[in-house]
Amino acid sequence: MLPPIETDALVIGAGPVGLFQVFQLGLQGFHAHVVDTLPAVGGQCLALYPDKPIYDIPGLPVCTGRELADRLLLQTKPFAPTFHLSQEVAEVAQQPDGRWLLQTTVGTRFLTRTVFIAAGVGAFVARSLRLEGIQAFEDQQVHYQAPEPETLAGQRVVINGADETAVQAAVDAANQKRSGLNAPRSVTLLHRKDVFEAPAPLLAELAALRAADALRVTVGQAVGLQTHDSTPGPRLTGLQIATADDEELTLPVDQLLVFLGLAPRLGPLVNWGLAMERKLLPVDPVSCGTELPGIFAVGDINHYPGKRKLILCGFHEATMAAFAAAQWLSPGQAPVRLQYTTTSTQLQQRLGVAPGPRH
Amino acid sequence: MLPPIETDALVIGAGPVGLFQVFQLGLQGFHAHVVDTLPAVGGQCLALYPDKPIYDIPGLPVCTGRELADRLLLQTKPFAPTFHLSQEVAEVAQQPDGRWLLQTTVGTRFLTRTVFIAAGVGAFVARSLRLEGIQAFEDQQVHYQAPEPETLAGQRVVINGADETAVQAAVDAANQKRSGLNAPRSVTLLHRKDVFEAPAPLLAELAALRAADALRVTVGQAVGLQTHDSTPGPRLTGLQIATADDEELTLPVDQLLVFLGLAPRLGPLVNWGLAMERKLLPVDPVSCGTELPGIFAVGDINHYPGKRKLILCGFHEATMAAFAAAQWLSPGQAPVRLQYTTTSTQLQQRLGVAPGPRH
Repeated sequence: MLPPIETDALVIGAGPVGLFQVFQLGLQGFHAHVVDTLPAVGGQCLALYPDKPIYDIPGLPVCTGRELADRLLLQTKPFAPTFHLSQEVAEVAQQPDGRWLLQTTVGTRFLTRTVFIAAGVGAFVARSLRLEGIQAFEDQQVHYQAPEPETLAGQRVVINGADETAVQAAVDAANQKRSGLNAPRSVTLLHRKDVFEAPAPLLAELAALRAADALRVTVGQAVGLQTHDSTPGPRLTGLQIATADDEELTLPVDQLLVFLGLAPRLGPLVNWGLAMERKLLPVDPVSCGTELPGIFAVGDINHYPGKRKLILCGFHEATMAAFAAAQWLSPGQAPVRLQYTTTSTQLQQRLGVAPGPRH
Repeated sequence: MLPPIETDALVIGAGPVGLFQVFQLGLQGFHAHVVDTLPAVGGQCLALYPDKPIYDIPGLPVCTGRELADRLLLQTKPFAPTFHLSQEVAEVAQQPDGRWLLQTTVGTRFLTRTVFIAAGVGAFVARSLRLEGIQAFEDQQVHYQAPEPETLAGQRVVINGADETAVQAAVDAANQKRSGLNAPRSVTLLHRKDVFEAPAPLLAELAALRAADALRVTVGQAVGLQTHDSTPGPRLTGLQIATADDEELTLPVDQLLVFLGLAPRLGPLVNWGLAMERKLLPVDPVSCGTELPGIFAVGDINHYPGKRKLILCGFHEATMAAFAAAQWLSPGQAPVRLQYTTTSTQLQQRLGVAPGPRH
């Protein structure tokens, strides 16, 4: 096993608040490593609303989620953070010297004096369909991502969902049926209302395919599974549906595609031994410190009296945490003094805009 | 006397935090009036560092003071604040119905339910030279702004200061001496060190004029005045100077130009009856409320445990204050709920980016 990466600061979460945490740590003279479960930097901004406008970032009358993430990433550049993406921190243990040893799901290890949890409301994963026994059919007959086209050949396909991903999958399956190549036997789009949220051209295509009988829409809610014992194991054969009129019907199904949006999952964090209150980490608002020494929590995941879950509040919290951490990293030193980036040569050296050493 | 302007919210200070206070009040559905002592919107950003870079505004890797002020002013636009510039709030009194009646130095009156003090460290005024009896000579022989050229004709001129304004005034007076028109008898630039802060071309001009004996530099600190009884009143005749070698010398002077930079002055605010601690207003960090009901303080002028005097912390505080004020303005209502500008139709209507009523 490789020795762990030794660092002053590990930031968990590469969303806007995690990125600004890197920046504020940089101003304090510390380099940070950053872990995120997503494959790209930007957190929710990029995963949930990359092209939607945000209006309440101070000084940015309007910007998209993607633009905000890009701007914050650019702002961290002088401090050259090291990103470790597509992985989650799975284990954490305090060492005899007070430092924290953390290991991610892909085996990256860190030995750090401070940890900043900027995990938002957790990692976003596909929301699952909660029906008893459904896990047994996952990957074979139940999918949370569109399967290969061949998987649907000759199959009775049900797509459960109403957002753009669901509508796109239904349209793709219906077009596959019409094309004749790997044609599904039937395509059904299932949702509790006959209302779908997708761009207008896609909705128009859906309407056209419905009119052409290439797919049908069933209005109702999945309440149970119909299964059939077979070899090598039981098969999913139908979906029990409750309709709006309180009727029950069974929808035959060979392949079930579930697109119910993303849901946050806190993940291994809940097993760290940190006290949580309603999935939030209580912190001291002065330092954003948790009950564990050297572990801070900032942004949507923390809680203190009056907390508002706004990005701009997370920016303030990351700043408070950076000051507190700087003090924590220099015990017994004089209180960390406030400096202004406009006037401080030291900060400008750290930012790389004034000549001189960075540290 | 005109009846007072009735409003939900009065913001004192049109600096970055005051502007963002207007924005956050607007999101909560309230229109604000804004009073500032300066003739333009932007506060310290514009008055002290309009062209200097700021690096720590989240999402703006670098922007000047002027650019930040412009961006924030643009962001308030949907909420059409009414600015009352070049005036200070001079009087404040609570009315029997709980509202606050305020009057400015030019007589504008407001009757408001909430007041947001975003006054920074106060109004900026020229720092005065603290020597006993100096006030008696102000305007006639002592100036804090460059006087008309004729005032200096035939006079022994001393310029006290080291910044760009001081150097520029010394260079102007020396050039006036060389031109022969309204030529001063002598020009002396006085500062405690032979170090001046000004753009390089101006410093080069200063050096050239010194080399040409058009002005001289005296290194030392003014410690007293030499005066002479005359008619109609006493005249300032000299400045007692302590040099670095602890010598005393007297610099003859007829006209003294003082450019010691700007100093903040809290002004009439100190007489409001609000408890102040070291010129700061203690607030509850959850609401940014002061001890007076309906009066909030945000930005550099407030204080709470852990307070950091950073613009981005002021943005957070203005947000907290807007939520608290919204609750205060709707007593007995359900708690004001958090909405996101990215998803809330109500907020987007208020911002004028979604169809529908603004209020």
